[in-house]
Amino acid sequence: MGIIAPPSLPKPFAATALVRGGGWRGRSVRVASIKAGASWEEEKPREECGVVGIYGDPEASRLCYLALHALQHRGQEGAGMVTVHNNVLQSITGVGLVSDVFSESKLDQLPGSLAIGHVRYSTAGQSMLKNVQPFVAGYRFGSVGVAHNGNLVNYRTLRSELEESGSIFNTTSDTEVVLHLIATSKHRPFILRIVDACEKIQGAYSIVFLTEDKLVAVRDPFGFRPLVMGRRSNGAVVFASETCALDLIEATYDREVFPGEVIVVDKNGLQSLCLMTHPQPKQCIFEHIYFALPNSVVFGRSVYDSRRQFGEILATESPVDCDVVIAVPDSGVVAALGYAAKAGVPFQQGLIRSHYVGRTFIEPSQKIRDFGVKLKLSPVRAVLEGKRVVVVDDSIVRGTTSSKIVRLLKEAGAKEVHMRIASPPIIGSCYYGVDTPSSEELISNRMSVEEIRDFIGSDSLAFLPFDSLKGCWGMTLPISAMPVSLGITLWNPGSLRSRGLGTLSTMD
Amino acid sequence: MGIIAPPSLPKPFAATALVRGGGWRGRSVRVASIKAGASWEEEKPREECGVVGIYGDPEASRLCYLALHALQHRGQEGAGMVTVHNNVLQSITGVGLVSDVFSESKLDQLPGSLAIGHVRYSTAGQSMLKNVQPFVAGYRFGSVGVAHNGNLVNYRTLRSELEESGSIFNTTSDTEVVLHLIATSKHRPFILRIVDACEKIQGAYSIVFLTEDKLVAVRDPFGFRPLVMGRRSNGAVVFASETCALDLIEATYDREVFPGEVIVVDKNGLQSLCLMTHPQPKQCIFEHIYFALPNSVVFGRSVYDSRRQFGEILATESPVDCDVVIAVPDSGVVAALGYAAKAGVPFQQGLIRSHYVGRTFIEPSQKIRDFGVKLKLSPVRAVLEGKRVVVVDDSIVRGTTSSKIVRLLKEAGAKEVHMRIASPPIIGSCYYGVDTPSSEELISNRMSVEEIRDFIGSDSLAFLPFDSLKGCWGMTLPISAMPVSLGITLWNPGSLRSRGLGTLSTMD
Amino acid sequence: MGIIAPPSLPKPFAATALVRGGGWRGRSVRVASIKAGASWEEEKPREECGVVGIYGDPEASRLCYLALHALQHRGQEGAGMVTVHNNVLQSITGVGLVSDVFSESKLDQLPGSLAIGHVRYSTAGQSMLKNVQPFVAGYRFGSVGVAHNGNLVNYRTLRSELEESGSIFNTTSDTEVVLHLIATSKHRPFILRIVDACEKIQGAYSIVFLTEDKLVAVRDPFGFRPLVMGRRSNGAVVFASETCALDLIEATYDREVFPGEVIVVDKNGLQSLCLMTHPQPKQCIFEHIYFALPNSVVFGRSVYDSRRQFGEILATESPVDCDVVIAVPDSGVVAALGYAAKAGVPFQQGLIRSHYVGRTFIEPSQKIRDFGVKLKLSPVRAVLEGKRVVVVDDSIVRGTTSSKIVRLLKEAGAKEVHMRIASPPIIGSCYYGVDTPSSEELISNRMSVEEIRDFIGSDSLAFLPFDSLKGCWGMTLPISAMPVSLGITLWNPGSLRSRGLGTLSTMD
Amino acid sequence: MGIIAPPSLPKPFAATALVRGGGWRGRSVRVASIKAGASWEEEKPREECGVVGIYGDPEASRLCYLALHALQHRGQEGAGMVTVHNNVLQSITGVGLVSDVFSESKLDQLPGSLAIGHVRYSTAGQSMLKNVQPFVAGYRFGSVGVAHNGNLVNYRTLRSELEESGSIFNTTSDTEVVLHLIATSKHRPFILRIVDACEKIQGAYSIVFLTEDKLVAVRDPFGFRPLVMGRRSNGAVVFASETCALDLIEATYDREVFPGEVIVVDKNGLQSLCLMTHPQPKQCIFEHIYFALPNSVVFGRSVYDSRRQFGEILATESPVDCDVVIAVPDSGVVAALGYAAKAGVPFQQGLIRSHYVGRTFIEPSQKIRDFGVKLKLSPVRAVLEGKRVVVVDDSIVRGTTSSKIVRLLKEAGAKEVHMRIASPPIIGSCYYGVDTPSSEELISNRMSVEEIRDFIGSDSLAFLPFDSLKGCWGMTLPISAMPVSLGITLWNPGSLRSRGLGTLSTMD
Repeated sequence: MGIIAPPSLPKPFAATALVRGGGWRGRSVRVASIKAGASWEEEKPREECGVVGIYGDPEASRLCYLALHALQHRGQEGAGMVTVHNNVLQSITGVGLVSDVFSESKLDQLPGSLAIGHVRYSTAGQSMLKNVQPFVAGYRFGSVGVAHNGNLVNYRTLRSELEESGSIFNTTSDTEVVLHLIATSKHRPFILRIVDACEKIQGAYSIVFLTEDKLVAVRDPFGFRPLVMGRRSNGAVVFASETCALDLIEATYDREVFPGEVIVVDKNGLQSLCLMTHPQPKQCIFEHIYFALPNSVVFGRSVYDSRRQFGEILATESPVDCDVVIAVPDSGVVAALGYAAKAGVPFQQGLIRSHYVGRTFIEPSQKIRDFGVKLKLSPVRAVLEGKRVVVVDDSIVRGTTSSKIVRLLKEAGAKEVHMRIASPPIIGSCYYGVDTPSSEELISNRMSVEEIRDFIGSDSLAFLPFDSLKGCWGMTLPISAMPVSLGITLWNPGSLRSRGLGTLSTMD
Repeated sequence: MGIIAPPSLPKPFAATALVRGGGWRGRSVRVASIKAGASWEEEKPREECGVVGIYGDPEASRLCYLALHALQHRGQEGAGMVTVHNNVLQSITGVGLVSDVFSESKLDQLPGSLAIGHVRYSTAGQSMLKNVQPFVAGYRFGSVGVAHNGNLVNYRTLRSELEESGSIFNTTSDTEVVLHLIATSKHRPFILRIVDACEKIQGAYSIVFLTEDKLVAVRDPFGFRPLVMGRRSNGAVVFASETCALDLIEATYDREVFPGEVIVVDKNGLQSLCLMTHPQPKQCIFEHIYFALPNSVVFGRSVYDSRRQFGEILATESPVDCDVVIAVPDSGVVAALGYAAKAGVPFQQGLIRSHYVGRTFIEPSQKIRDFGVKLKLSPVRAVLEGKRVVVVDDSIVRGTTSSKIVRLLKEAGAKEVHMRIASPPIIGSCYYGVDTPSSEELISNRMSVEEIRDFIGSDSLAFLPFDSLKGCWGMTLPISAMPVSLGITLWNPGSLRSRGLGTLSTMD
Repeated sequence: MGIIAPPSLPKPFAATALVRGGGWRGRSVRVASIKAGASWEEEKPREECGVVGIYGDPEASRLCYLALHALQHRGQEGAGMVTVHNNVLQSITGVGLVSDVFSESKLDQLPGSLAIGHVRYSTAGQSMLKNVQPFVAGYRFGSVGVAHNGNLVNYRTLRSELEESGSIFNTTSDTEVVLHLIATSKHRPFILRIVDACEKIQGAYSIVFLTEDKLVAVRDPFGFRPLVMGRRSNGAVVFASETCALDLIEATYDREVFPGEVIVVDKNGLQSLCLMTHPQPKQCIFEHIYFALPNSVVFGRSVYDSRRQFGEILATESPVDCDVVIAVPDSGVVAALGYAAKAGVPFQQGLIRSHYVGRTFIEPSQKIRDFGVKLKLSPVRAVLEGKRVVVVDDSIVRGTTSSKIVRLLKEAGAKEVHMRIASPPIIGSCYYGVDTPSSEELISNRMSVEEIRDFIGSDSLAFLPFDSLKGCWGMTLPISAMPVSLGITLWNPGSLRSRGLGTLSTMD
Repeated sequence: MGIIAPPSLPKPFAATALVRGGGWRGRSVRVASIKAGASWEEEKPREECGVVGIYGDPEASRLCYLALHALQHRGQEGAGMVTVHNNVLQSITGVGLVSDVFSESKLDQLPGSLAIGHVRYSTAGQSMLKNVQPFVAGYRFGSVGVAHNGNLVNYRTLRSELEESGSIFNTTSDTEVVLHLIATSKHRPFILRIVDACEKIQGAYSIVFLTEDKLVAVRDPFGFRPLVMGRRSNGAVVFASETCALDLIEATYDREVFPGEVIVVDKNGLQSLCLMTHPQPKQCIFEHIYFALPNSVVFGRSVYDSRRQFGEILATESPVDCDVVIAVPDSGVVAALGYAAKAGVPFQQGLIRSHYVGRTFIEPSQKIRDFGVKLKLSPVRAVLEGKRVVVVDDSIVRGTTSSKIVRLLKEAGAKEVHMRIASPPIIGSCYYGVDTPSSEELISNRMSVEEIRDFIGSDSLAFLPFDSLKGCWGMTLPISAMPVSLGITLWNPGSLRSRGLGTLSTMD
């Protein structure tokens, strides 16, 4: 689930951006899945999941568990894993963090050298446990497990069609239709069933599948969501949403799974085929703005570099006289460092983030002002007192958190507070998005920049200009430039089906 | 799931009985689902579940919870409930006892006036949580919940057929095929979908279904498993596996759901139709021997009366000189009272059952002899010392528990121990059964009565003669005798379909 | 804690009995610790604890755990154990059942061949965890653990005296003063410290102590609470509140710890000394009426025999024309069997007890009549309908439960209900008792037998006559008859102290 | 418990510093309580606790809970709170984080306007639950609760003396002797009992006490551990280990509790008396180096300023040609910013800290190199590749973590790694310390700086020079400079006792 755009619309840049005509709303981005909530960070755009797949390691479940831990920032509400042992798929899923869901004894129940895993951002109530992925289903020729990051825009249509022909649904997740499409495919080889399914679904999907003997990774033609591939020194193949997961389990980063690519890993090695090429991939810019870890390489580019550059642009385009540059931690830090360096002003830790803020906190009935923000962020008077402060944040959604932060800084003695935002204004939810708040809740949809500045109470406010963002990001990873260093032959699925799977060259 | 027989075989008596030719194995019964295990009682035949359905009470979930508690003896491993609120089905399921799975706050999450519930006997591991019923599925025209007691003998065939046409399966339970059959029915009215499904499934099934606006109860044509109907004073309709559930929630027992009957309860009242009549219902005799509570009325007959009569028959047919009659508690008590009364010998509590034996107990490495039995049963020396003791148990499966009990009694001073079993020898698992141990494990399958007596070390041994069992039980509840006191009109589903549902007369 | 009497009052019989002058209240007993509560059985007199001590078995903690399980009926609210390993006392305590508090891994944390354990009846809230015994304290010469069954009547006086000299208290338990008295004793040998402490405390106490190298068992001079001694075949010595604990761990019952006796077990063997003899032991009759298991031998007499005799007396002294005799399970069963046998009327299971009633149950807002009783007890219509029923219970406290049971039986069809109580009327809490309800709550304190009969709605009512109880019980175990079969030399502690411990003869 | 020094030794600087003669070990500090452990951060010096006290707020428990949360970095292993309601002390303690131990319903069990609380760094096993503070005890004149940060050096002597006179001990904590000393004091007024106790204990103690009507804060004469006082706008008085706790609950910082001061808060207002002045307070420098949060003011000085200055000194005294300055997060960040600013080299986030590392993580059997460090710290290749890197950490204990970090950085592409440590070498545990590892484990005790550099594999290594530390820190808060703005009259306890408490002037 996540940020998506219609596959048919030719768009100049990222899938999440809608270029409008002139005026203050003209340069802004759309984002899906902003979760309402009182506390700090819940107002941020939310990434919905991280996926992992491992083939060929005798400790697949332990490595998968660590890789999921490395992707924990992409989803803290639920986690799960499926492995294969003696030709049977074993599954454990649960609500909570990876370290809550899995224990030594649980991992011992998941032997085998194949595994897929998933972390999920939102699971409401115990009865929603069944929405925690990976899902597993039995079908005509065996069992299949699936873990999905993304959002299918034609889910309701597909579900209706499937229900009309008698399918029953156990979850409210769009991922379940993929299983049904695989099961109802007229083809026998698993890979052709995958191709059949992918030709029907539209939207954002980075998916890993597991069968009794295969690991399959698929990415939608636009490449909305990231998915990378690496190898361990013992030859095991690893797929993951971000490179940080490869790093932790000592897998070397090979390359992205390309937009529109299907990679099958089994005893014959790796096979790749190209589902559908698209001249303009639409990778979600919010991965670089907010979702991914700065030590990850996403869409072939360092997240750290992106954020630093965003900060530098802000310093160049929206300079202000100031004494100190601070960040709203953690995701604003790298942009703030870029700003400070470019502006030649010292960066300081003006806000300290607590490591111990959990799900809920009990507030006294005599309300503490800006309680939610204060639990997480503490201003440092020694840095702020009497200073003109530039504070860099990654985005503004509803604006309420920003106004609390400005107040916090001023109460701690800041003489001036200049807010700099390392993303363009967010003016609407993604066109095909599902889990988004109404556009009315987005402050950039209702107010001009000056009105927002007034609302949050800062002395100045500037967003990352959309054109600069576009310029700095550039056109990454055109499909024609896909490396073939792994000896992968690209296939057109049409020809594949006409010739049959047996003619696929294999390698490794 | 449970004890079943082929619907096509004309059988003289109950579904679980196989009459063999002459010899010592000739008069015996088959039983399904005997669970292996070291501890006492795990050797007993196991009942697989209890079901509840409630229509029209504003506190449906609380009543369902209490009714499930009353049926707790039918399954202690998992429990679940589905209710309807604002046209949406809500479900909570969990591993453990009813009182573990549900709390005040959980029940508050289940508002509405319709509910179905289920208690389950066996759920292995957390990953098996998804096998805990009721199951809920979405299909073309809405959602349906299902709770099932019984065992479908053509499950594998049906599953294969469904998978061939593209269905996917989320559990390993036979109950899931019923949902698929409902979803793939060509008919629109829910009741006709039910009829379609029931015409395809074979075996034992007492099922309650829930939709957004209907409660449906179904019993297979042989009536293997019990299912009763009652009403509360506010008009709410209650279905339950045993009458003890009605008693606790102050519902008056109306009658059994008849073999082959479908009862639909909705805003139009009750509608009954007859799926398929069968001249010889095959109600499972083990309900009266072991499964049901003695205060229940099962198959229209008091369980207490049955057990007392079994004991009286044993006293008549297998008398022995003795000083005291004792029972293996709890299920042997009533038969022992019958034996004692008939024999004119005092009944005493020679074995005390512990109330605190839970799932696992830790044994010292210096093994305690007959540890598992001793944890549960304590002999009373004051009753046994120097006495000739008749001990009445309900059944013998593997024989190992019986031998431990005989040893326990002799060590506590019993001069003679005469074992009387209130059921015929169990010589095989049910012909169509699934979850049964191999026949080789059944001691009556391998040994003559005298050999068993020698094995368990008792001074004499006698089983309930099969013919006497048959005689005392009689032919209960012929389909032609079905009362129509509720104003229910019986329908033939064929005519129903030709005429459409709209013509169904309604009542209440 | 428990039922106690002033040591100075010469009383004709048991400590709990107060003989009044003529009139309907003249023959009755006092009882301590009747817990208020809505549900069935909570109205019963409550036993407060069970204690265990084990010396000389390499698996002391596992055996102690099993022995505590056998005593679980004496206290379900908390459990704990202390063992000695490498001269250090290790302790684990917790809220809940023995099987909840201890697991395999917890027992592995309790190595060593010495152990004491405790089960406790009442622990309110988490903060009361510290009131769960055994208590452990460090003092001048090492550490000591203590587990106590009974009730000290001069606790407040002793605590005040200790506090005046600077002692601090960590619990609200009377047991803690014993630790302080041991610590403040002027003597060096542990046994003399014990003697010092016991000379100061008054009331009911059956205590086991543990030090780095000793196990000590003590019983107060009146012998209010039971305490028995046994041996395992490997020579290990076991103390326990009831013989049922010895039975489970295959220890042979030797004898009671005598009233006023201190038994020390260490590497020198067993040493016994006599604290203080008393011509009239005052053993609590409620152990035989209600607290102990029928398979236990308590105060040297079979509990089963006592209860059967109580029933026979009732049948003789309060006969009535009836068709069936039933019991309120479980503690009324043996008396009911005695009644039925003497009266020549069949005993039947007219009330079935549920095995699954836990701590709390959620009741619908549309109240179910007699909800608490119905959850636990189900009437059997097949036994009761149209019958004149004698129902035997062990006691009547407030009378509300009895009235519910009578109503339950009549609603199930009983034509007449005759209540027979296997104890005298309870007219007051024990003179020195502490945790007792006010006398006003005791129905026998407020009403005559006829008034009670009218209140509970039975057709007749009779209690066990006090004089018959006295007669049947007799004078058990006069101190002069103490066996010396173990080669134990009895000591007068005065001479002991004058001669010093070194001169104690040892054995085994 | 913590870092301590003999009160009798005149020392030039902080209690934890031992100045040696010439040579490489001559300028270094001693530190207590370094916990062994495989994972990152466990090698760091550990602060043992944080304390909170609140008087006069109707929501004392909720505020105490939030203040403990703000101090969570001082102890994550256990938390507890005591409040007063209706003259009774209520206590809840538990193992884990503040948010684990307390819930809405738990806090509801702690009504009242007085509270003290504690967070604790180490509690081994469930049986150690009783070592979680605050402790509560009953004594002659009531109850007292105590929460203690520090370490008493004469604990064993005091415990022996107390045991000799009959005291028993329930914990292994030095804090318990304080309760005994209060209980055994010959004085009646609580404040004189406190004075009596404090005159006997030696070592480090910042303590808050609670009685039925008083809150008392005490700090040892050397002021080893911090303790501050503040007020809420409603007049409630708050004590806490660090000012960050005041900030969260909107209490204004008044001042430190002075070394040797006792402050009593009750219905008469605040009373202060001076236990014992000392010319040279010995505040623990590790509060500024490592323990406290940078947004706190500790010993009257901003922690942030201290750390930044430490970094600046390092840049001045140990410069090196480099391209980037990075920190080992979190405690090295501020010093790294100081270093970078002084050196004129950009600061970057070269190491990212994970927010999700909990207690234990499961490692594959095919070991991952530097597993523990990698779970917590991820290098950013975009920052490091090809660069000459200065990395600033707060301290080196065993040196193993430092060597892993150097390796991590080099593997991520760093051309050179220059380690700068913002504290002097730690060469021994504090002279009077208790819970410290052997000196042999401290790498600075065994090796010269060059040998350490070689061991950790860095290209250069420098520590904060001891004399510079001394210079920058200065002499803070001489006792003669204590403000009297609150109208507090300072008392000499000797004169207090001679005159009696009644003559104390009160205020507010």
